[in-house]
Amino acid sequence: METNTAKRNTKPVVVIVGFGKGLGQAIASRFEKVGYVAVGISRTSPMISADTTIPAEVNKAFAKIEEQFGTPDTVICNTAMLTMGPFLSTPAGVFEQTWRTAVMSTFNVASAVLPRMVRAKRGTLIVTGATASIKGGKNFSAFSSAKFALRGLTQSLAREFQPQGVHVAHVLIDGIVWSEKSRERFPELQEENAISPSGAANLYFTLATQPKSAWSHELDLRPYSENF
Amino acid sequence: METNTAKRNTKPVVVIVGFGKGLGQAIASRFEKVGYVAVGISRTSPMISADTTIPAEVNKAFAKIEEQFGTPDTVICNTAMLTMGPFLSTPAGVFEQTWRTAVMSTFNVASAVLPRMVRAKRGTLIVTGATASIKGGKNFSAFSSAKFALRGLTQSLAREFQPQGVHVAHVLIDGIVWSEKSRERFPELQEENAISPSGAANLYFTLATQPKSAWSHELDLRPYSENF
Amino acid sequence: METNTAKRNTKPVVVIVGFGKGLGQAIASRFEKVGYVAVGISRTSPMISADTTIPAEVNKAFAKIEEQFGTPDTVICNTAMLTMGPFLSTPAGVFEQTWRTAVMSTFNVASAVLPRMVRAKRGTLIVTGATASIKGGKNFSAFSSAKFALRGLTQSLAREFQPQGVHVAHVLIDGIVWSEKSRERFPELQEENAISPSGAANLYFTLATQPKSAWSHELDLRPYSENF
Amino acid sequence: METNTAKRNTKPVVVIVGFGKGLGQAIASRFEKVGYVAVGISRTSPMISADTTIPAEVNKAFAKIEEQFGTPDTVICNTAMLTMGPFLSTPAGVFEQTWRTAVMSTFNVASAVLPRMVRAKRGTLIVTGATASIKGGKNFSAFSSAKFALRGLTQSLAREFQPQGVHVAHVLIDGIVWSEKSRERFPELQEENAISPSGAANLYFTLATQPKSAWSHELDLRPYSENF
Repeated sequence: METNTAKRNTKPVVVIVGFGKGLGQAIASRFEKVGYVAVGISRTSPMISADTTIPAEVNKAFAKIEEQFGTPDTVICNTAMLTMGPFLSTPAGVFEQTWRTAVMSTFNVASAVLPRMVRAKRGTLIVTGATASIKGGKNFSAFSSAKFALRGLTQSLAREFQPQGVHVAHVLIDGIVWSEKSRERFPELQEENAISPSGAANLYFTLATQPKSAWSHELDLRPYSENF
Repeated sequence: METNTAKRNTKPVVVIVGFGKGLGQAIASRFEKVGYVAVGISRTSPMISADTTIPAEVNKAFAKIEEQFGTPDTVICNTAMLTMGPFLSTPAGVFEQTWRTAVMSTFNVASAVLPRMVRAKRGTLIVTGATASIKGGKNFSAFSSAKFALRGLTQSLAREFQPQGVHVAHVLIDGIVWSEKSRERFPELQEENAISPSGAANLYFTLATQPKSAWSHELDLRPYSENF
Repeated sequence: METNTAKRNTKPVVVIVGFGKGLGQAIASRFEKVGYVAVGISRTSPMISADTTIPAEVNKAFAKIEEQFGTPDTVICNTAMLTMGPFLSTPAGVFEQTWRTAVMSTFNVASAVLPRMVRAKRGTLIVTGATASIKGGKNFSAFSSAKFALRGLTQSLAREFQPQGVHVAHVLIDGIVWSEKSRERFPELQEENAISPSGAANLYFTLATQPKSAWSHELDLRPYSENF
Repeated sequence: METNTAKRNTKPVVVIVGFGKGLGQAIASRFEKVGYVAVGISRTSPMISADTTIPAEVNKAFAKIEEQFGTPDTVICNTAMLTMGPFLSTPAGVFEQTWRTAVMSTFNVASAVLPRMVRAKRGTLIVTGATASIKGGKNFSAFSSAKFALRGLTQSLAREFQPQGVHVAHVLIDGIVWSEKSRERFPELQEENAISPSGAANLYFTLATQPKSAWSHELDLRPYSENF
């Protein structure tokens, strides 16, 4: 019977939740370049498809990953629903779904992977934030509230799980990542003023490979031209 | 037929949502002392009883207040569910309910009162935060995440509604308010180390009566003996 | 021989350091209205004139105040030098003087008054910050650096002296206070978009009269129309 | 005649200001490993000795570096004086010197290198902060005030110089770096609970090599066991 350790010794595993063609794909490539297996999870992913707001679907996805590849070394939570608009035009259902997509997804992912990582005494959980994680801007009530919530959750997880050997980090993406999806949504965006997916991916890789003696919890990322 | 203005001219109105015997009662007394009508809303309030996580119940409560007393001058959101414990022992349902109690309640209240205050070109909405609003402590994953979310929402509302003449403020309660309920939960708490309800109530009153030319958005509050 | 206690029983004392005709005068009036003696210190004050960057001058000023009026109840530090401009056009001397005006003045004032307040087991020290205290904006290298320094000093003093019964608070003035001086410097400023000196003064008074069971350490202040 | 460009094409240059045997040496090694020339500046450095609080000495040091090696690619400011103790036992001279060591040194270094980097349209300036940069702890009035000041300066420089192509970053060292010096000062420190110099050095190297499309401005660093 094949053991978990045996699997583990083959290749390290990175899982990208809320996998997309921009940042997600770039992260996968960056880790694969040095020998990782990269697994993407999203509602429409060709890899593992799951609605991450539902605990059972997340548990099933991670059980499958464990079975096939062993305990993930690095898990990255990128799920987000970018809601913008005046507060009084934001239906309760949209407000809630914005929170659910970012926060309950990450809650479910953390619930599934942290016990595995604690057992393995290693692992990195990285959560993607935004400018809206630290500034509640006008017309961003739903998105800011969700991103603030995600930051509070991530900070608390870091304080609880880092002393147990599991690294928890929060990346503040301050700007728009250059991707097909972002170009569709913001047609006037120029590459010059966007965050390069490969540049961002490098930072996630750096976080995932920091030694226990020098862990970063929070860092920001923006293009040189961004006002902040 | 009696008009809204007629009602308005009688007495100013303060509404305390998540009304309790400690802070809520002290706020009511402070405002009543200078002639306000104070109305408390909570699931078990003898005044107006409502489940504030449900939009329809909140709308009904505020329609009733409008009908009886006119547009509220000051609305204070105190709803909270103080969840503590290890992350892996926090069920998804408890995590969600902690968020719902603090954040969806305030969303519902803001949705009900802000249109009225914008129309009246006056009004103050005050939201109660905690240490956990700015620090995601160990064993506070649910509570911190909810309180961070509430702070992001409140900041965004301030940026959107203050230029329209409605004051939105956030009070960081750093410590435990001295009340029957808190003494039950924390039997070793001494009054010396607790926040006095009347002291806190004074600050809410100050916020509610600041002129448009000098509004505070965020302030903290703690007993002199509190480490921070 | 008249004792300090005897003097103390006559009238409470507020001292405004960096006294000016705008905010300083308004604070003095607010406190005098309820019976305080208000004393202004500045280089050109008609009350007590001192260069507050020099320890000996500050000590002398406070010895004089003690002698005449007793231990101050409230001391407010408003000294500032508003330096703006590109970093590479900021001479080292100007950078240093900006720091010295804000920070060494407050250091000197705190050194003079805190031992007196600790002995009296009461007292409030309020330090005036700005937007630049929490955001290092472009062209504000000298001013931000000084205001950040002042905030760090004030926070540290609060943590050290509050448990000894002395209240230490920091007010973030986010905007321009309406005064003769500010109108000269910013000729296009309109009263509508400025902070009213009396509105600000009210907040300083609230801080000075908070009970030990409910102290605020940091709060902001802006006109309703201010973007933030 | 040899031009600056010619020199530049030989080897990239990293300058470590406030060079010491712990973090400074580790940074030098990390950069040298991939072909950089590393130059250390300190009062007692065997490389370039200068009192960095004095503008003329800093200018002379950087002129010499430019002459010998070309425009630095990366400059790291580590100068610090770790002052601790009760506020009322902190002499004005010590308070000032703490500020001068951290802040005026960095002001002088930035004044010397930023014009060169702007001309070269490349370069990274990294400033080392601490926990005390964002929290004014009890007994840290001088150190916190200086570190807050340094953070304000660094943020302002980032906002001014990043759009000109020069990267400015701030590293929050939350813990003690394992070194001969720190072991002397904190004899009970265990390696397990300290930041490894090489781990920290890696992060400085990552910052120095980020592409313009993905720059971090602020990040923290602590050992897994650190409470925060």
